[in-house]
Amino acid sequence: MNRKMVYFLVGRILLLEGGLLLLPLGVSLYYGDNGLVPFLITIGLCEGIGLLLCRIFRTDNNVMFAKEGFLSTALAWLSVSVLGALPFILSGEIPSFVDAFFETVSGFTTTGASILRDVEAMSRSMLFWRSFTHWIGGMGVLVLMVAVMPNLSGRTIHVLRAEMPGPTMGKLSPKLRDTAKILYLLYIGLTLVELILLVAGGMPLFDSCIHTFGTAGTGGFSLKADSLAGYSPYLQWVVATFMMLFGVNFNLYFLLVMRRFKSALRSEELWTYLGIILASTALICWNVLPLFEHFGDALRHAFFQVNTISSTTGFSTVNFDEWPTLSRMIMVLLMFIGACAGSTAGGLKVSRVVLLFKTSRREVRHMLHPRAVTSVRFEGKPVDPATLISVGSYFAIYIGFFAFFWFLVSFQPGFDGVSNFSAVAACYNNIGPGLNLVGPTLGYWHYTPFIKIILAFAMLFGRLEIYPMLISLSPSTWLKK
Amino acid sequence: MNRKMVYFLVGRILLLEGGLLLLPLGVSLYYGDNGLVPFLITIGLCEGIGLLLCRIFRTDNNVMFAKEGFLSTALAWLSVSVLGALPFILSGEIPSFVDAFFETVSGFTTTGASILRDVEAMSRSMLFWRSFTHWIGGMGVLVLMVAVMPNLSGRTIHVLRAEMPGPTMGKLSPKLRDTAKILYLLYIGLTLVELILLVAGGMPLFDSCIHTFGTAGTGGFSLKADSLAGYSPYLQWVVATFMMLFGVNFNLYFLLVMRRFKSALRSEELWTYLGIILASTALICWNVLPLFEHFGDALRHAFFQVNTISSTTGFSTVNFDEWPTLSRMIMVLLMFIGACAGSTAGGLKVSRVVLLFKTSRREVRHMLHPRAVTSVRFEGKPVDPATLISVGSYFAIYIGFFAFFWFLVSFQPGFDGVSNFSAVAACYNNIGPGLNLVGPTLGYWHYTPFIKIILAFAMLFGRLEIYPMLISLSPSTWLKK
Repeated sequence: MNRKMVYFLVGRILLLEGGLLLLPLGVSLYYGDNGLVPFLITIGLCEGIGLLLCRIFRTDNNVMFAKEGFLSTALAWLSVSVLGALPFILSGEIPSFVDAFFETVSGFTTTGASILRDVEAMSRSMLFWRSFTHWIGGMGVLVLMVAVMPNLSGRTIHVLRAEMPGPTMGKLSPKLRDTAKILYLLYIGLTLVELILLVAGGMPLFDSCIHTFGTAGTGGFSLKADSLAGYSPYLQWVVATFMMLFGVNFNLYFLLVMRRFKSALRSEELWTYLGIILASTALICWNVLPLFEHFGDALRHAFFQVNTISSTTGFSTVNFDEWPTLSRMIMVLLMFIGACAGSTAGGLKVSRVVLLFKTSRREVRHMLHPRAVTSVRFEGKPVDPATLISVGSYFAIYIGFFAFFWFLVSFQPGFDGVSNFSAVAACYNNIGPGLNLVGPTLGYWHYTPFIKIILAFAMLFGRLEIYPMLISLSPSTWLKK
Repeated sequence: MNRKMVYFLVGRILLLEGGLLLLPLGVSLYYGDNGLVPFLITIGLCEGIGLLLCRIFRTDNNVMFAKEGFLSTALAWLSVSVLGALPFILSGEIPSFVDAFFETVSGFTTTGASILRDVEAMSRSMLFWRSFTHWIGGMGVLVLMVAVMPNLSGRTIHVLRAEMPGPTMGKLSPKLRDTAKILYLLYIGLTLVELILLVAGGMPLFDSCIHTFGTAGTGGFSLKADSLAGYSPYLQWVVATFMMLFGVNFNLYFLLVMRRFKSALRSEELWTYLGIILASTALICWNVLPLFEHFGDALRHAFFQVNTISSTTGFSTVNFDEWPTLSRMIMVLLMFIGACAGSTAGGLKVSRVVLLFKTSRREVRHMLHPRAVTSVRFEGKPVDPATLISVGSYFAIYIGFFAFFWFLVSFQPGFDGVSNFSAVAACYNNIGPGLNLVGPTLGYWHYTPFIKIILAFAMLFGRLEIYPMLISLSPSTWLKK
């Protein structure tokens, strides 16, 4: 294994993180809060360690295989999280390392689960950095590196593949760097549109930034204890709509920009995704109608909550933990389905659910007509058996690791099964709020450090789609030559 | 489709059910309780309808394909359940049809979920019939038909395949009828050994019959409100051990009888199954140790409860719903894993779990070394890709239908999510008791008729491994020629 290359890439990522930290540093300077020194120290450490790693592990051997890709992705995410937690600790706003690490992982993985008891007591620059991690983590820290940094080997496809969510990674351009650039340009474009719409609707600029970062990365950190409950219906509709939009495969936006409307609108995944949102909104709206005075309110809250879960964002406008069993149950199902592949959202992804459904349907048909030759088609193309096996085993691994994390969390006595189940589901699928103890009006501060560390790893497993973390934690990666 | 053959087979099954009802009729005569007339009427109906169906649908066309196999299995199970419910209704002991149907389906599918508020008020003959359905349903009503009835076409393999649990059906003998006979002989043999051990331990003969039927079929109906809590430790150990034994693939017992010890002991599924039981018992024993005075008690109760869930039986010696979160969580996991294929138990089956695990492991290896050619091996043989896809899609369908039933049950307001989740899990996996409202000391009488019908179908879907029910409920089966 080309370990030098792995550590070299981690060094590069830290250099990049140092650069990104200039933004919250600016915010701190503008508001004159106590974030200045913590950010300066962190930037210094990022640049120092980054330069050191790049110097020591400089190598002419550019060869990267899948293993190096997975490993550098996992290590990069761990490193940016550990260093990204420093400002919270140094400023004393989150004094415990475990808490700060949890919060930063929750930020980068776009989970949005928080250990803060009083978010409104945080300083401006810390709030900004906390939400900015959502934005960085949404499209991916390695994708950003490929987009902005020169001199990277052509093999970095493995890095991107390990970071991009979904069963297959679309190539927008034959050149990888161009793909990464296009993705980030689309991402910045959509982010700006939302920001403008929020500011135009009367939300203060700072609040608009925070909520736009949370929406774009499908993260969900807010700066209010009641999330978006206190904002106007217009603002709630805007955020709900953009949560939905950021759950769409970015390849489709590229097709739209290229005026290839027909190809974009032919996407099976898109229509299934929209169908799921429509059906869930209708059902929940009908189910919660008695709780609201006006139909419009029920519809807005249902639409908002469906999209916050479906896109795995985690904002809220009501305490959906008090909703009837049916609605809560639908939310739990949506947690696992997630949004489209190639979006900033988490979960299993709609395309995988569609593929599993189609494979199962073919299986039933095959049982009835054993001699008929049938193939599974997706997005207009036949899917090869290797991909079907691979989607099936991803599903098994996905459910298996969910059960494993649930099992680990249960070791800590004193918490009920529903809280544990929904905490793991919400972290693993990168959503944020769960039910009972971890419901939208509560948070993760109840839990012990032991559980917080497990949940932080659940977030990383979920965001990176298991394999990178699995491979870097497996002893064989480190023991064998 | 050869519908005549399907209805003919259903007729045959009803004739057989009429014959099996002679046993509870005898019990009723012996104890002189009020079951006499209800059983006589039911026997008359079974024989009458059975003869009528066999007469009308007599056909020379013996051709059976998978579709006919699935359909006749599903219809046979529905018919024996509807007619088997009659004695309860006619005797007035379970006056509502929905309740009696639920109880009978729960019996035949070896679930053991009960709507009775006071089981000890039931008459002897009704208790006997209720538990005898476990014994019949355990090895399978169609397997029995093949074993005892002459003149069946060679195509009945499709019938057996639809009824035998597990990914593939082993052939013990080249002749199908011999296989069915061998299976039933082994089943009767093991049943007798348990009966003798229970009577020898001081359990009254009637109680021993009831509990042996419940163990052999991995059903779980008892004649006491507190299940096996009131019996001696010796009797609890015997029942626990036999629950474990009835969760083993019957092919292995055949190999043992044929003195092919080496082949029997090479079974991967067996060792995984025993490993799961051992690990779960150890963990739960450690977890519940503070609740008991003696280590022996903790061990016995842990071993009993692990086996009751693992083998999907559903007896209990303690109210495990009061156990700590970790133990309850392990029980929920065990519910889904189930026991070995080719046993009387429900659940996903250990062999499927092993295959899913191995496929996933190969998937990870394949990612790291894309050019290496690796195959998945199980029980010493390579598994072909079609089987891997099929196990993967069964898992997806299995989880999908679990979510679907959970979703349907949630439509009824007034029940909490944990009760609903565990009720569906316990019925779908043919276990019986769940958590909260449906915990071991409570039952299913809380639920409305709507939910009871859904849960009864969940039991049938689980027992017949989804496809037969799915195919008979799909409109295309009935609309197309």
